[in-house]
Amino acid sequence: MTFAATILTLYPEMFPGPLGHSLAGRALREGLWRFEAVQIRDFAADRHRSVDDTPAGGGAGMVMRADVVASALDSVAAAGRPVLAMTPRGAPLTQARVRDLAAGPGAVILCGRFEGIDERLFEARAIEPVSIGDYVLSGGEMAALTLLDACIRLIPGVMGAASSGMDESFETGLLEYPQYTRPVEWEGRTIPEVLRSGDHARIAAWRKQMAETDTRLRRPDLWERHEGARVKPPSGARQRSKDE
Amino acid sequence: MTFAATILTLYPEMFPGPLGHSLAGRALREGLWRFEAVQIRDFAADRHRSVDDTPAGGGAGMVMRADVVASALDSVAAAGRPVLAMTPRGAPLTQARVRDLAAGPGAVILCGRFEGIDERLFEARAIEPVSIGDYVLSGGEMAALTLLDACIRLIPGVMGAASSGMDESFETGLLEYPQYTRPVEWEGRTIPEVLRSGDHARIAAWRKQMAETDTRLRRPDLWERHEGARVKPPSGARQRSKDE
Repeated sequence: MTFAATILTLYPEMFPGPLGHSLAGRALREGLWRFEAVQIRDFAADRHRSVDDTPAGGGAGMVMRADVVASALDSVAAAGRPVLAMTPRGAPLTQARVRDLAAGPGAVILCGRFEGIDERLFEARAIEPVSIGDYVLSGGEMAALTLLDACIRLIPGVMGAASSGMDESFETGLLEYPQYTRPVEWEGRTIPEVLRSGDHARIAAWRKQMAETDTRLRRPDLWERHEGARVKPPSGARQRSKDE
Repeated sequence: MTFAATILTLYPEMFPGPLGHSLAGRALREGLWRFEAVQIRDFAADRHRSVDDTPAGGGAGMVMRADVVASALDSVAAAGRPVLAMTPRGAPLTQARVRDLAAGPGAVILCGRFEGIDERLFEARAIEPVSIGDYVLSGGEMAALTLLDACIRLIPGVMGAASSGMDESFETGLLEYPQYTRPVEWEGRTIPEVLRSGDHARIAAWRKQMAETDTRLRRPDLWERHEGARVKPPSGARQRSKDE
């Protein structure tokens, strides 16, 4: 089974873009994944090929028409693949969702532009709105490329067998521990002694501790979720405090 | 002043990539921003031009050498620009940081690959580690493209004056309200009556309410932050509950 991405976009020329290079590019040439970019404009019904119109109720920018985008979407055989729409209003992308997607047949990905897509499309079709982060992009294309990059590296055969990626940031709910390599001394700074000890148990313990410390200091939000998943509060106090 | 991006990477051919199209591409051709991609490998000191080595303490993959990356970084005139490194261990990118960057002279952006960069580099140089989301990419290049896309659209002159972007998701700490456009009826679904009323006050109130409802339902984390910033807890109870 080959991971298949169908991207609906006004800018098909943006694909594969950066995914044509390096790890993803090699995997594309080896047939480990494939993509097609569908031009949404080809589904416009009027002679001006319009895909957007002004926002109902006023405001800046343009909104993509539900009818045109639905026609484009309905032309695609999803074949069991989830239909995702890249939008800042979506659910935040997680490494767990990436891993799910990478293990499946692929995805149909809808790229919004301008002020977004008419909301009725999301009511009328089974679409999963996905956000890659709490910032605004010029369109869904960059978000789709990012999502695909995260998925492609996890497709079986893309990374070496040794690099399962299970040790990385977010796989354990924590940031990854800091890494070091040669030279042993650089600008007066040496690689931590424990990493040069050859004592695998000590190294594993040190790395675990560093991952925990860095997560607690840098990402208290991740740390709280990690601790919440690990230990249930004895009295439900944590839950109550959220409802205040 | 032109927004200037200097990208340090092992894959300079990935730039401008998607940023050569559409809004960002037009702005690039108009000289509203510029970039240079620096090949880190050009700063390798040995005859094999190695940039990476095995992780100290063992483990899969390769780690980028601090000495080589530092040489590449030290060759760049930052000229008042912040130095960012794209890494999942970084601080989550926010729209506020994007807006800051877009208003400044640009950025020097370091793209990690493999298992990351030797941690000593972050101790020895003033580098801001930035993460675009809680997932793992094949390298920092896609993250850099995403960061730049978010910044470029906010550079003065890139979007029309009417589209200041201030109404969008995250600008107010909330998701954006849903958007609608013509046709008024589609597949039996009509644009909400209020948006066709012409009553600007009612429309504004409806949009505010929708933004709040959608944020509360879809992004309880954002909602909690928004509410926390708006009302201070009367007794410090919220603070205490975090320290339990």
